[in-house]
Amino acid sequence: MNLESYIRTVPDFPKKGISYKDITPLLQSPEALDFCIKSFTENIDANIDMVVGIESRGYFLATLLAKHFRAGFVPIRKKGKLPYKTLQESYDLEYGQDQLEIHEDAIKAGQKVLIHDDVLATGGTAQAACNLVERLGGEIVQCNFLIELSFLEGRSKLKGKSIHSLLSY
Amino acid sequence: MNLESYIRTVPDFPKKGISYKDITPLLQSPEALDFCIKSFTENIDANIDMVVGIESRGYFLATLLAKHFRAGFVPIRKKGKLPYKTLQESYDLEYGQDQLEIHEDAIKAGQKVLIHDDVLATGGTAQAACNLVERLGGEIVQCNFLIELSFLEGRSKLKGKSIHSLLSY
Repeated sequence: MNLESYIRTVPDFPKKGISYKDITPLLQSPEALDFCIKSFTENIDANIDMVVGIESRGYFLATLLAKHFRAGFVPIRKKGKLPYKTLQESYDLEYGQDQLEIHEDAIKAGQKVLIHDDVLATGGTAQAACNLVERLGGEIVQCNFLIELSFLEGRSKLKGKSIHSLLSY
Repeated sequence: MNLESYIRTVPDFPKKGISYKDITPLLQSPEALDFCIKSFTENIDANIDMVVGIESRGYFLATLLAKHFRAGFVPIRKKGKLPYKTLQESYDLEYGQDQLEIHEDAIKAGQKVLIHDDVLATGGTAQAACNLVERLGGEIVQCNFLIELSFLEGRSKLKGKSIHSLLSY
């Protein structure tokens, strides 16, 4: 399947000079969704206990990955969105910082975890997500992404992790 | 299955006096996820073309519903998040208004559509979502929700729609 044909490039979004990779045509196609889940999962031999999706576009495929592995699903959310007791990690934005949170009972020590987001860009959010999972004692089997913006070198923030991206720009 | 045992009530979130229904324990359980998808789908005979999930907690189960029906998935998002051409609908908040958007090519006229969100509260967002789908010519087969806060009478805003909620408070 030519997965790239399901990605729409939108110029100047969210601001001038940015070419935004719009995954909604992919989401509208059951065949493309199936292809993505198969591609993400075919080389993972481990039992996966929990799949973590990063707010909010990471949620789209994370629950499908959880279904595939018969695992649970855990959302990592932006600050203030999760109602129960949380751990927090800060990450850098273009200007300033923001925080991600995970429920402190979301993952048990020793559980095997997949982390999913739609895009790997600078790697700041993925790194913060990894830190949250590891602080709870989770073992990260893989971080996977539909799209990797390789010119932003996000991989450099995820040293030692298994990384799987389906499309690289 | 006693689905209610997978819902955690968090007092005073997001503000004092609100008893928040936290669905994350449910999401962590593959058995509870399976039970929800089975419950939502067992009485739907129509072919479903698209499943719409409302930002952002509606995304969690919407892609699983899409997978079940071999349908596509369409996100309805808050204002300014979708990159391509959109339709907008306003809905009332406690103070003021907000807007939901859908991509104008997300649904084709005559397609059969399920709308999913985690909670039916006042019904404002669900009503706006229905309007967006119908403006694109979609036929709404059902609106479904994990939780219905029936004291808020959200059903009154969805007259004529088939509504399925798994837990009512």
